[in-house]
Amino acid sequence: MSASHTASITPLTELLSQDMRLVNEVIIARMSSDVPMIPQLANHLIAAGGKRMRPLLCLAGAYAVRGADASGDHKAQLLSAAVEFIHNATLLHDDVIDESDKRRGRDTANALWGNEASVLVGDFLFARAFELMVETDDIAVLGMLSSASARITEGEVKQMTMAGKPESPMADYLQVITGKTAILFAAAAASGAKVSGGAKEVIDAMHHYGLSLGMAFQIVDDALDYRSDVAAMGKNSGDDFVDGKITMPVILAWEKGTEDERAFWQRSIGEGDIQEGDFAKAVAILDSYSAIDEALQRAKSYVDEAIKALDILSDEALRSALQSAAYYTVARTS
Amino acid sequence: MSASHTASITPLTELLSQDMRLVNEVIIARMSSDVPMIPQLANHLIAAGGKRMRPLLCLAGAYAVRGADASGDHKAQLLSAAVEFIHNATLLHDDVIDESDKRRGRDTANALWGNEASVLVGDFLFARAFELMVETDDIAVLGMLSSASARITEGEVKQMTMAGKPESPMADYLQVITGKTAILFAAAAASGAKVSGGAKEVIDAMHHYGLSLGMAFQIVDDALDYRSDVAAMGKNSGDDFVDGKITMPVILAWEKGTEDERAFWQRSIGEGDIQEGDFAKAVAILDSYSAIDEALQRAKSYVDEAIKALDILSDEALRSALQSAAYYTVARTS
Repeated sequence: MSASHTASITPLTELLSQDMRLVNEVIIARMSSDVPMIPQLANHLIAAGGKRMRPLLCLAGAYAVRGADASGDHKAQLLSAAVEFIHNATLLHDDVIDESDKRRGRDTANALWGNEASVLVGDFLFARAFELMVETDDIAVLGMLSSASARITEGEVKQMTMAGKPESPMADYLQVITGKTAILFAAAAASGAKVSGGAKEVIDAMHHYGLSLGMAFQIVDDALDYRSDVAAMGKNSGDDFVDGKITMPVILAWEKGTEDERAFWQRSIGEGDIQEGDFAKAVAILDSYSAIDEALQRAKSYVDEAIKALDILSDEALRSALQSAAYYTVARTS
Repeated sequence: MSASHTASITPLTELLSQDMRLVNEVIIARMSSDVPMIPQLANHLIAAGGKRMRPLLCLAGAYAVRGADASGDHKAQLLSAAVEFIHNATLLHDDVIDESDKRRGRDTANALWGNEASVLVGDFLFARAFELMVETDDIAVLGMLSSASARITEGEVKQMTMAGKPESPMADYLQVITGKTAILFAAAAASGAKVSGGAKEVIDAMHHYGLSLGMAFQIVDDALDYRSDVAAMGKNSGDDFVDGKITMPVILAWEKGTEDERAFWQRSIGEGDIQEGDFAKAVAILDSYSAIDEALQRAKSYVDEAIKALDILSDEALRSALQSAAYYTVARTS
């Protein structure tokens, strides 16, 4: 295995650690409000962490343009905080919509503070994200991220209208995950390059990398939901099945399924009539078609695409770190 | 009664009718999405109308700078559509939070499509509003409206934390309505002047007018909720009482109340233990202190302030129309 095939996010977090510390300071400072419930609730979610993928991608975009000189680029830091705020706003609203009570292994904000607070603090974080973007004084960046935000919600609405429909075409699923995940990865990476004065080719390359990475990331996430041996995801396996969320493995199995199997999908994930043993049966059907493996294969193709997009980058350290991050996305599976 | 004391919004809508037609076209065009549920739901709400106060104020801001030449100012039209989208996004989220099933006399979107759809389409309208603002290519305007948006949510969260607390200080109530209503009126009027290249004094005057008008508007709205004879408001009288929403009349009556009365407020609006005859009793207590009249008086002071802010405007037709609109705010009461 060559060094460039390390599957880890660590090289990227280490390369950008100094800036990420400053981004975290911006995040904490800009959650503040005269209304105490806002920082309390926001802090519960944001301090819980996650990998901060989107701020990392934004900083990586700046680094792609200016190399190590990008360190200390305050505009890129503001923008990184903004994309993290947008992401967390959508998480707050998702948890309301899904009526989730666990996220990243902790009680969700809506479980603790109620749906009202989660809706409103999500709105606050979204508005605050735009305030941060305004401070970069770069209207093109605002254009990228406002349009990404609209597409995120389109993806989520589409996902909602697909719920309980195992006969949905694969193209619909891909449209959903493009919106709900990949677009913000892409916009984060591209806007980091833009705000640092990058050339169009670099901005486009970062966009392409982020988009492909986001697709791979979400496909893997969805596939792992049918792996009962995966406990480290911070969500329960089988959640999507119970919620009627239609993802790639189910669509693959539906396409190839017998009449009996389709009737099973229709009753269970379709109509939400889930009986004992149904999840195990679902996993068995998926396995009989290697549907999870095929989904992971498709995720790997997106990773390959992401890595190809990096060719244009001149900084060896950054390229290698972004490669490792891309391999990491699919390495979670094995 | 002099002509300038007409209490009506008609002079303003007539003065700006040509532009408002174009704003409505922008609104319809920009609700569109590949995901059909989005325009369906948005159209249900937005087509239901309302007075379009915020777009009118935005166009008035442009008119204050450029007079009749402002007509056809596409940037002001984009911005007017944007503020209407922000407003409707907050309405969608409010209806989810309040679990309302009626708005403007029609079924609410959440009653028809569910909470999930209302949350997400609210997010979509908010994101789309920022896309429209980006098209004005005026970052100062984005600053005004992103900061207004953050303050709107702060006002709403504050309102939520005040719920069921009749002992709340008046200052808290004023902070709530500043955020939830007045700030967007102010930002709409000021940003319309800004995007048209207005001088600072004109921008400030429009901001002051919008802010005062918004305060008057919300105080009257809240006071009328205790007037059983008002049917035309599109919401049911007594809603705030049942919801535990603490507004000016209740705070005034609490301040002056006897121990028994305070115990009544505490049980009913405070703890939500509403018994038959409680609303009539609440109205009787408010009347014994002339609390509704006093609230309306305070609203009138804001109207006076709004009108004073207009002194700087040179266009007689606009000044007179904005005066009439201000008087209209409090004339709804008699």
